[in-house]
Amino acid sequence: MQANWLDQIKWTADGLVPVIAQEAGSGKVLMFAWMSRESLSLSVQEGKAIYWSRSRNKLWRKGEESGNEQIIKDIRLDCDNDVILIAVEQRGGIACHTGRKSCFYQQLQEGQWVSVEPVLKDPKQMYK
Amino acid sequence: MQANWLDQIKWTADGLVPVIAQEAGSGKVLMFAWMSRESLSLSVQEGKAIYWSRSRNKLWRKGEESGNEQIIKDIRLDCDNDVILIAVEQRGGIACHTGRKSCFYQQLQEGQWVSVEPVLKDPKQMYK
Repeated sequence: MQANWLDQIKWTADGLVPVIAQEAGSGKVLMFAWMSRESLSLSVQEGKAIYWSRSRNKLWRKGEESGNEQIIKDIRLDCDNDVILIAVEQRGGIACHTGRKSCFYQQLQEGQWVSVEPVLKDPKQMYK
Repeated sequence: MQANWLDQIKWTADGLVPVIAQEAGSGKVLMFAWMSRESLSLSVQEGKAIYWSRSRNKLWRKGEESGNEQIIKDIRLDCDNDVILIAVEQRGGIACHTGRKSCFYQQLQEGQWVSVEPVLKDPKQMYK
């Protein structure tokens, strides 16, 4: 059964699928990351977002260091079967490693990227 | 000036950047696509979403056939400078080529992908 729904996903040549994480309720887009077959399967089993870190080349249990876990409320697949959208409850209210709620805090304003969202917590305190 | 903000984006080896399109107001995530340097630059100039079609290998003016254009209200860049989030006003209320509002209409339910959003318009009528 599980293999079946995983097989319907069109994985990249690297065996990954892009994942958009959105805050349940507010609809705020928090971050964008990747999942492997294993990480998506584990995410469903545990009900928490577990990504695949392409830079570290290993499973990345979101919040394992910062405590800012993402509790999964909904999982969607797009029309081309190659992008996942998850709705999550963001523990700590912070998804970004910079200490901001969302990773999308740079807004284009007249030809410049301007940071428009506050740092809610010092990253040094998040990652001890 | 324009070259500057475009240079801050970390483009893929293929010269693209992933783009999440979200409906302004509702926060509904509508679709996921790619933009090239040229298509993003044109999107900003024209105030409408112009993607890069990887399958057709050319500029894709969203809505050019269906009329379902996306008017850009906000453009964000993430913390890693490699993902764009745009807030759009979705003309016609339909972003998906299947005639649904959002491309993310398949919901994971007990090990199965289930279509949970209605087809608002017959695709045959959208693409004559």
